[in-house]
Amino acid sequence: FNIAVLGGDGIGPEVTAEGVKAMQAVGRAFGHNFTLEYGDVGGISIDRHGTPLTDGVRELATSADAVLFGAVGGPKWDDPSAPTRPEDGLLALRAHLNVFANIRPVKVYPELTDSSVLKPHVLEGVDMVVVRELTGGLYYAQPKGRTQTPQGIVGVDTMRYSESEIERVLRVGFELARGRRGKLTSVDKANVLETSRLWRATATRLADEYPDVELEHALVDACAMQIVLRPASYDVIVAENTFGDILTDEAAILAASMGLLPSASLSGTPGFYEPIHGTAPDIAGQGIANPCGSILSAAMMLRYSLGLTEEAAAVDRAVQTVLEQGYRTADIATAGDAATGTTQMGDLV
Amino acid sequence: FNIAVLGGDGIGPEVTAEGVKAMQAVGRAFGHNFTLEYGDVGGISIDRHGTPLTDGVRELATSADAVLFGAVGGPKWDDPSAPTRPEDGLLALRAHLNVFANIRPVKVYPELTDSSVLKPHVLEGVDMVVVRELTGGLYYAQPKGRTQTPQGIVGVDTMRYSESEIERVLRVGFELARGRRGKLTSVDKANVLETSRLWRATATRLADEYPDVELEHALVDACAMQIVLRPASYDVIVAENTFGDILTDEAAILAASMGLLPSASLSGTPGFYEPIHGTAPDIAGQGIANPCGSILSAAMMLRYSLGLTEEAAAVDRAVQTVLEQGYRTADIATAGDAATGTTQMGDLV
Ligand SMILES: CC(C)[C@H](C(=O)O)[C@@H](O)C(=O)O
Ligand SMILES: CC(C)[C@H](C(=O)O)[C@@H](O)C(=O)O
Repeated sequence: FNIAVLGGDGIGPEVTAEGVKAMQAVGRAFGHNFTLEYGDVGGISIDRHGTPLTDGVRELATSADAVLFGAVGGPKWDDPSAPTRPEDGLLALRAHLNVFANIRPVKVYPELTDSSVLKPHVLEGVDMVVVRELTGGLYYAQPKGRTQTPQGIVGVDTMRYSESEIERVLRVGFELARGRRGKLTSVDKANVLETSRLWRATATRLADEYPDVELEHALVDACAMQIVLRPASYDVIVAENTFGDILTDEAAILAASMGLLPSASLSGTPGFYEPIHGTAPDIAGQGIANPCGSILSAAMMLRYSLGLTEEAAAVDRAVQTVLEQGYRTADIATAGDAATGTTQMGDLV
Repeated sequence: FNIAVLGGDGIGPEVTAEGVKAMQAVGRAFGHNFTLEYGDVGGISIDRHGTPLTDGVRELATSADAVLFGAVGGPKWDDPSAPTRPEDGLLALRAHLNVFANIRPVKVYPELTDSSVLKPHVLEGVDMVVVRELTGGLYYAQPKGRTQTPQGIVGVDTMRYSESEIERVLRVGFELARGRRGKLTSVDKANVLETSRLWRATATRLADEYPDVELEHALVDACAMQIVLRPASYDVIVAENTFGDILTDEAAILAASMGLLPSASLSGTPGFYEPIHGTAPDIAGQGIANPCGSILSAAMMLRYSLGLTEEAAAVDRAVQTVLEQGYRTADIATAGDAATGTTQMGDLV
């Protein structure tokens, strides 16, 4: 298998190295051969090549069997007047690969109850997957820009969705729900937004085709409250790009740390895999970041892009076991625990 | 004082009646006279007058010294193809009164720790105010609509902000922070949105004028996580309309129930006061809704629109005392507590 490895900035390369390590261990144990092709993306690519995504790296990603991505961005490239920034590389890749369905499972490890801000009873039975629309909405639509007017500068972003863009990502949600507990929560702001009314109408129309799935509509503001108050009541959540971005970072509260959460961006090719966390500039280079988000993203890659189900399960189990054995990176260590470093955690898994 | 009372739909009228009751008690105790003028708004106005906001009610609100608002909306009016809906009445009122700064304080009552999903240590020292931009952004800007195209229906909403709209609401945040702990968190999604880049640049520019306030920028996704993980680290948060909508519903997690949270929409005239909760159709008419959000909104009205500081403090204290005495509406009752009803809670306060 040809895997494009794009570590990016900050802790991106550190954690991605551990995702790669997990794949190599799978290769040895199960007899697979992973050819790794590395590329620059994001801030490091701006620094080296003047653009956050070179044609070469776009090609490398397109022709791979799957992409393992780290994270991009950082204060160094944050100037609001910069012509381009690290995140543009990520957005361009997602759009280019057409990976419109970003799957973000939220798993609660009972071992980590002590590290959670939530009371244990709230976390009982939590097992949800968020499907975030990834290639449309406010992130991409035109017009988008800042213009000088006689009254001062005016900024514009556009949230635009066609029915077919909404339908294809909702179908991913319905299919996932069908294979799980059969409940789909479609998130919108239909009492205010026109895109949301189209979203809601489309979900309602599709529900007829999935009689085995119970569809519920939730307003994004209410969902932002309920996802923490009553997390066990969710099975599959589907939301547009910006809402999904906010809700999945929030849902990390349930998992004790964002550092544990993987994601798979699917339905275009090749599949695109990245932890949901960012570049964490404050801890970059210290070897203390949690690599589990990347390792579990590699597991999702094995499962969804390479068809290696058993191998994926072995990686998931390894993470579970290491946590059961009490190893904790700094983000999930409680007072008194000695924290395990990034590479050591990767070795253990 | 002339007060326009617009209860709206669902539990709106029930809780608003208790807000009014608190004002009347203040009137008796401190010798003020409140003239109440009632009007229909939202779904009830659609049913009775064919529009969610009649010219008469708009006039009534405009000429009052302050507006006490309940909530609008409900499944009865949720048809995505309806030409108008209850929420349009609320949005039109906010815009017409030009109340661009929606102040949402998040207070934690230590008595309610048992009802919280959060571990007690997380709630220690939590005392924040969210300033939500209320008359711009995705809620209002044009183009906004759904159009049939050869490729199917396309929906569009527009996020547009001028520098002056951003500046005026940020100034409300800076001023508030100056009178509190001196910290302002400006929320945006500047790594993706152009409106957010303008927002961030404007906040940075204004910070020079407020050397006594420490300005921090936060990405909305990160903030949605941190607001529950580390709530005590926030003092004043300022966010655009949609982000503020989501974050304040989420912040209700900190207060144990959304039913306790008031809001004041300011800087236009007259001031506009509403609990942050919605119409709760599932419990409407049962007399079990928590009226404290409306009662505390009335207190904010006394303070901000009528200059009755001592009176406002008396209402705040009354709510505090009733909670200390152990009275609990259903939303904050723990197993074993007998729940207090809406009007009884109002009587007690
Ligand atoms: C880095 C940023 C552009 C990105 C996003 O908003 O999609 C990140 O927050 C994420 O959730 O993957
Ligand atoms: C009812 C709805 C239009 C409203 C909003 O989104 O502003 C509500 O959610 C709120 O927060 O006041």
